Amino acid sequence: MLSPCHRQTLLDRRHALTQRFHRPVILWSGAALPRNFPSNTYPFRASSHFLYFAGLPLRNAALRLADGAAELFWDEPSSKAALWQSLPPSRATIAEQIGATAHYPVAQLEQYRTGAATLPSPDPWTRQCQEALLGRSVSGLDNHFDRTLAEAIVSLRLIQDEFALGEIRKALRVTIAAHQAGMQRSLTADRESQVRSAMEGIILDQDYTCAYSSIVTTHGEILHNDRYGNTIQAGDLILADVGAEATSGWASDITRTWPATGRFTSPQRDLYNLVLNAHDACIAALKPDVEYRSIHLLGCHILAQGLVDLGILRGSAADLVDQDIHALFFPHGIGHLLGLDVHDMEDLGDLAGYAPGRQRSDRFGLCYLRLDRPLQAGMVVTIEPGFYQVPSILHPARSQPKYQDWINWDALDRFSTVRGIRIEDDLYITPTGAETLSAALPVTPETIEMVMDSSS
Amino acid sequence: MLSPCHRQTLLDRRHALTQRFHRPVILWSGAALPRNFPSNTYPFRASSHFLYFAGLPLRNAALRLADGAAELFWDEPSSKAALWQSLPPSRATIAEQIGATAHYPVAQLEQYRTGAATLPSPDPWTRQCQEALLGRSVSGLDNHFDRTLAEAIVSLRLIQDEFALGEIRKALRVTIAAHQAGMQRSLTADRESQVRSAMEGIILDQDYTCAYSSIVTTHGEILHNDRYGNTIQAGDLILADVGAEATSGWASDITRTWPATGRFTSPQRDLYNLVLNAHDACIAALKPDVEYRSIHLLGCHILAQGLVDLGILRGSAADLVDQDIHALFFPHGIGHLLGLDVHDMEDLGDLAGYAPGRQRSDRFGLCYLRLDRPLQAGMVVTIEPGFYQVPSILHPARSQPKYQDWINWDALDRFSTVRGIRIEDDLYITPTGAETLSAALPVTPETIEMVMDSSS
Repeated sequence: MLSPCHRQTLLDRRHALTQRFHRPVILWSGAALPRNFPSNTYPFRASSHFLYFAGLPLRNAALRLADGAAELFWDEPSSKAALWQSLPPSRATIAEQIGATAHYPVAQLEQYRTGAATLPSPDPWTRQCQEALLGRSVSGLDNHFDRTLAEAIVSLRLIQDEFALGEIRKALRVTIAAHQAGMQRSLTADRESQVRSAMEGIILDQDYTCAYSSIVTTHGEILHNDRYGNTIQAGDLILADVGAEATSGWASDITRTWPATGRFTSPQRDLYNLVLNAHDACIAALKPDVEYRSIHLLGCHILAQGLVDLGILRGSAADLVDQDIHALFFPHGIGHLLGLDVHDMEDLGDLAGYAPGRQRSDRFGLCYLRLDRPLQAGMVVTIEPGFYQVPSILHPARSQPKYQDWINWDALDRFSTVRGIRIEDDLYITPTGAETLSAALPVTPETIEMVMDSSS
Repeated sequence: MLSPCHRQTLLDRRHALTQRFHRPVILWSGAALPRNFPSNTYPFRASSHFLYFAGLPLRNAALRLADGAAELFWDEPSSKAALWQSLPPSRATIAEQIGATAHYPVAQLEQYRTGAATLPSPDPWTRQCQEALLGRSVSGLDNHFDRTLAEAIVSLRLIQDEFALGEIRKALRVTIAAHQAGMQRSLTADRESQVRSAMEGIILDQDYTCAYSSIVTTHGEILHNDRYGNTIQAGDLILADVGAEATSGWASDITRTWPATGRFTSPQRDLYNLVLNAHDACIAALKPDVEYRSIHLLGCHILAQGLVDLGILRGSAADLVDQDIHALFFPHGIGHLLGLDVHDMEDLGDLAGYAPGRQRSDRFGLCYLRLDRPLQAGMVVTIEPGFYQVPSILHPARSQPKYQDWINWDALDRFSTVRGIRIEDDLYITPTGAETLSAALPVTPETIEMVMDSSS
């Protein structure tokens, strides 16, 4: 059941699209995908573009937008299906709820296809349906009108409306509780999977889902580590990148790194505080019209200077960043857009992340940057600096002449217990700066230790 | 890392296939499928046929079996991938572990495709790869050799070997703990999602996955209910159909139904004991050469007789079952095959579940039966009788003349608090009977109450 506020939001979004794009649009919701056989599917997730304009995660549905009207195409489950599934309301009721002006069985979409633009569904089955109906390829945004539609939708989805922001806040409330549970569980856990279970348990408890595969690991240097099989040793840091997704589809994305014992060692604290300095400085610099790329470079600069101060790097921060030396320890981007997708609109490649005319750098220190646009009030972005000792980067670097002047390997060895630290928050760009939406979650070594201490 | 025992099992299975099928075989493992954008995938699950012969859940891999040899086709992740993922061993190491005689990049599969039979991948992307490589449709087992291969693999996978049985036992240990946690959590839970969280939390804690979407509901009459949003009322029964999957891929599938308060009411107890009687009698009747369909009919008969004894039905059990009257309250089948899939090999339709020449009945009381074969020692099957009051079945039945002689609606109304009961265990067919693999989980009203009492 949609709230009246959600319904009005859908109407507003569709109206805004009409202002920007003047042809008919068909957006598909997607299909439930099989895990190991057809009736054993993964939990269904509707396409984010469909959710943005249709509001409800209907399976195998399409929404047609044309001339200011919205038409829902969807087949009601058969009466037999009531034996197996919890039945949704009738199509008429759903159409009314989401403010659709008409509703039809899917088969009738055939009569409404002429001249429609669309966005490619992430799921291959639905993409086949799209291509069959429209009689053309929909991949790669090769079609001019598809691309223009994508640009129009990007311009809308870049700015989170009030409803979206409220949903992200809801997701964050659950995510914050999950991280606190993870910190507490770490004190007694023997294995990563136990900490993950405590964190995702909170998300399931609230009937939310995970917005992405959780990272809960003592090996934070593997950036998207999705295994949970390591045992936890007393000196380990645990890096947890876990975010809940609200039932409406809006995501959250938070990383904390904490000591398994509840107490940072001195080298861990030094590097943690360095990453935290970069995190705080980047957040302080966020405001409309600032280039996100400059925020990334600011983070790199602070990390480089801090590594100089700790004796690990030599030289000036500016030179170190110019030469991508900092990227040996911070190889990824400072963050990304957040919205209905954890990397918002990444289904469109870099169309959302990169301003028109820009493309990814091939520099090691910039190639993984997912967002390169001037900030605008209403955007939600992540800020997530880190420090990592990645063997596949550092091992070859140790024998490459070009790094020897820059790096004091002996000094680095004193920090060998620190494999990976990342600190990530979600930020709402306001007219004058940025609000840390996840500010309620402890982030300093002292507050993390306090949370863990109080639960031991 | 595969154990030597697992490796030997893989060699034995491949050898056994060679005895039954004399052409080259290529089995694909499948791809990770996108959730909402390409890099945000669902947790990868390899195809069960691949896992059966290759042992490891490699992504985008193929195993070719020909002339007694096994060849692995798989591309090692690039060195860049080490930054993002935990790297697997080299292809050579994996080939050695799984006892493959040779190993190649996937591109070389082109040279080895001639005359190969295959089984269709459940995932649409991989199916496209299969069809492109083999130059023919692979759907529907239309190809004679694909169908012959499917029959050969079914004949193998019907019988669980020692390794498989050990893995099912491992999965069940976790599943049993999950159900116990669910019973305990129910005493204080306000919402279904909290009970689900407690149960799946145990599965995650052990680093296992769910073999299927858990059913944890106060509305057990919705047979595959996958929502968890209902509040729990004091008089509710909670039906939990939750099963862990071992890391090797083997499944478990257990259902228990318990009172939210920890104490069955008298009508709940009466109907629970009836379902339990059917459960026990069906299990007692399992042994090699017995037709599983006769087990189903035995369960139906006991349920019908019990409903007569409770005054809900009128007439003889034999007539009630002949007329499918029992199916108003027990509309599904008594169980199914269990193995690498929770409904084992259901990706092949009824090829595994139904003996050659047999097909599904269109009788209401038999059409949902998933298994119609004589039992064989080594099979693992579920037994899962139930009693449900499904509104979409019973509401129309109340006004249909043909049911009025058979059903005492007033008597039924005394049991209105019982919406759904199911009791499901996993059984290993031995030479003389069947072993209840999940026997350690309480199943009588008394033992369930005892578990819940001890935790309150």
